[in-house]
Amino acid sequence: MNIDFKELANKYQTPYYVYDFDHITTQYESLKGAFKARKSLIAYAVKANSNLSVIKHLAQLGAGADCVSIGEVKRALKVGIVPYKIIFSGVGKIDSEIKEALELDILMINVESAAELNRVETIAKELDKKARISIRVNPNIDPQTHPYISTGLHENKFGVDIDTAKRMYIQCKNSDNLDPVGIHCHIGSQLTELTPIKESVKIVADLVRNLSALNIDLSFIDIGGGLGIVYDDEVLIDVNDYAQSVLETMFGLDITIVCEPGRSLVGNSGAFVSKVLYEKVNGSKRFIIVDGAMNDLIRPALYNASHKVEVLNDNKEFTDCNLVGPICESGDFFAKNIELPQTEHNDLVVLYSAGAYCFTMASNYNTRGKVAEIAIEDGKDRLIRKRETFEDIIALEEEFIK
Amino acid sequence: MNIDFKELANKYQTPYYVYDFDHITTQYESLKGAFKARKSLIAYAVKANSNLSVIKHLAQLGAGADCVSIGEVKRALKVGIVPYKIIFSGVGKIDSEIKEALELDILMINVESAAELNRVETIAKELDKKARISIRVNPNIDPQTHPYISTGLHENKFGVDIDTAKRMYIQCKNSDNLDPVGIHCHIGSQLTELTPIKESVKIVADLVRNLSALNIDLSFIDIGGGLGIVYDDEVLIDVNDYAQSVLETMFGLDITIVCEPGRSLVGNSGAFVSKVLYEKVNGSKRFIIVDGAMNDLIRPALYNASHKVEVLNDNKEFTDCNLVGPICESGDFFAKNIELPQTEHNDLVVLYSAGAYCFTMASNYNTRGKVAEIAIEDGKDRLIRKRETFEDIIALEEEFIK
Repeated sequence: MNIDFKELANKYQTPYYVYDFDHITTQYESLKGAFKARKSLIAYAVKANSNLSVIKHLAQLGAGADCVSIGEVKRALKVGIVPYKIIFSGVGKIDSEIKEALELDILMINVESAAELNRVETIAKELDKKARISIRVNPNIDPQTHPYISTGLHENKFGVDIDTAKRMYIQCKNSDNLDPVGIHCHIGSQLTELTPIKESVKIVADLVRNLSALNIDLSFIDIGGGLGIVYDDEVLIDVNDYAQSVLETMFGLDITIVCEPGRSLVGNSGAFVSKVLYEKVNGSKRFIIVDGAMNDLIRPALYNASHKVEVLNDNKEFTDCNLVGPICESGDFFAKNIELPQTEHNDLVVLYSAGAYCFTMASNYNTRGKVAEIAIEDGKDRLIRKRETFEDIIALEEEFIK
Repeated sequence: MNIDFKELANKYQTPYYVYDFDHITTQYESLKGAFKARKSLIAYAVKANSNLSVIKHLAQLGAGADCVSIGEVKRALKVGIVPYKIIFSGVGKIDSEIKEALELDILMINVESAAELNRVETIAKELDKKARISIRVNPNIDPQTHPYISTGLHENKFGVDIDTAKRMYIQCKNSDNLDPVGIHCHIGSQLTELTPIKESVKIVADLVRNLSALNIDLSFIDIGGGLGIVYDDEVLIDVNDYAQSVLETMFGLDITIVCEPGRSLVGNSGAFVSKVLYEKVNGSKRFIIVDGAMNDLIRPALYNASHKVEVLNDNKEFTDCNLVGPICESGDFFAKNIELPQTEHNDLVVLYSAGAYCFTMASNYNTRGKVAEIAIEDGKDRLIRKRETFEDIIALEEEFIK
């Protein structure tokens, strides 16, 4: 990353997130290009990084949006993604969300259970609408990733099995208020193995053929997302191999490919930058304490995730330490048993690969305001989210003090 | 809990948090009463539940505040806690926070490292102030709780060892800008064993005696907090036994006891209430999907914590299931392999013991607004925090869309 982190720290203070929008462009173009042999829609998985400017950037490149709440649908619309490129996914949609999605006339609602299909049908009937439906199939395939972000096994809450999916498609076909247009599978996140993806897409493509024999002709096959990024020394799936594997399974099908990348578009674009407050040694353990904390970036605490760390100083002697934040629990760490140079007060510390599932999971724990977010594009920086103040944090509860 | 959850759901919608303020009163009074033989200050650990109305309620009972950020200090002041009852703790204080704490003239700054003491001294000198200092001693005692909330071992980032503490007290005594007034230890949270607490307080009381021999006479001994609550079938420490154990170690000392309870005052006062969206079965696994999620209450995902669950319906036949939220990851669960009755759309589900470390850790993951918080006092309910809207969520980034 060719970013002057110190200049940004002087200009915007710390901690902050910064995203390289040109990297996002490269990632988008390379994935879109890999599918050029087919009609395709790259629907950005907004949950990965939902900053409005990030979504807008992808919208301008032509991306659609894969959304998992009506809030995410509204974000997509807000920055100009057209309704016919928006998909509403997720295992638990609230009635009011279904209603709003139907009124907004988005591309399709991705349904994850028989009970949900009934709710959508009921609500569509009340609104006198025909709901465009995609059904998420759970192919029962192990994606070989962290259990928390594995989603394609029957033990996971996601999707329905193939027989249930078939019954649901027939229900759609027979309903005045349901229109079966798509099929979906997604087996997990941070995937680095191609074989499980190919197996699951093949299962779904075969189902498309079976449905066609029942006169249910789908227009969209949503192959999910989940392509991994580099946190440490991962060997990634090549997007051309990925596309090739997917396309091979679709022989003879006249269908638009939908792909829902999140992490792979934005993850490696981002860095989280904090400032050293102190060093200390407890017993034989060295600690570097920075002004960023688990409320800003919870992946190490939540998934035991590792992010590459760089201390921006000239010290060459590295020793073992834990890199931690100021929050009052031992779960507040960024890295354990890592070799880092001796630091001074105010040295900057960069955590890389922080563009996805980092800011979006930030909280106000310990009454810490959410940090600033910055974009870099064509070598120019700009603020894309203001640092949260104390007044912002208490805004919704202040009036109730009695 | 004698709360009409259904009535509250009709009035405020779901999901919501509700706190029984009368329970908080009982908890506070019983702890304060247990220390009646001594001068004492019960400094509420604001991080447990930092809603302004909760702090105000405790302030009116006479509580002080144990704060871990300047934001928490401001919360305490906002609801009328006087500066001389406010302590600023935490392993990583930012220069601006130290400056503000000194200007606000709070009771004392609880220092956790030699490097931090130097920063406080430098800043106090710049302001021409004398900083009242307490030092957190790490007694190297295993509190027998979850590793993420264990804080009193040398492998943890908290406090300093006894020899370092002594040197730091001598530095204070010899400084024009530091005034050593207190000592502190805190070995962890959700403690259910008395012995480790007693051992650690004894270590600290002995140090107070040693310091006195060096003509360093402290006014406050802060015994920390950490008393556990009932999540499942925990046998709790009796507060009178607790006080008695602590008081025994203080024989001959003329010193005010400071205690920093958080979870034990508010944890069992709270419940998190959500609504059933659907049931589904994947393979042989039954799932109940509710409208609350890990962004609202992350303790099960983060600590593998368990909360008692009750479904509010009349079904008597219980079967095994997972209770999950709508968020798109398998980490989004409230309980796994739990026996619950068959549910219908819109049935309410209550998670108990949700008064501490629940709302405070809430995020906007998946663009979900933070939920409403409600207080019950004398049988009357009132809103103490408004449900967050889409407009609230995007407020700090909207202006930057270009």
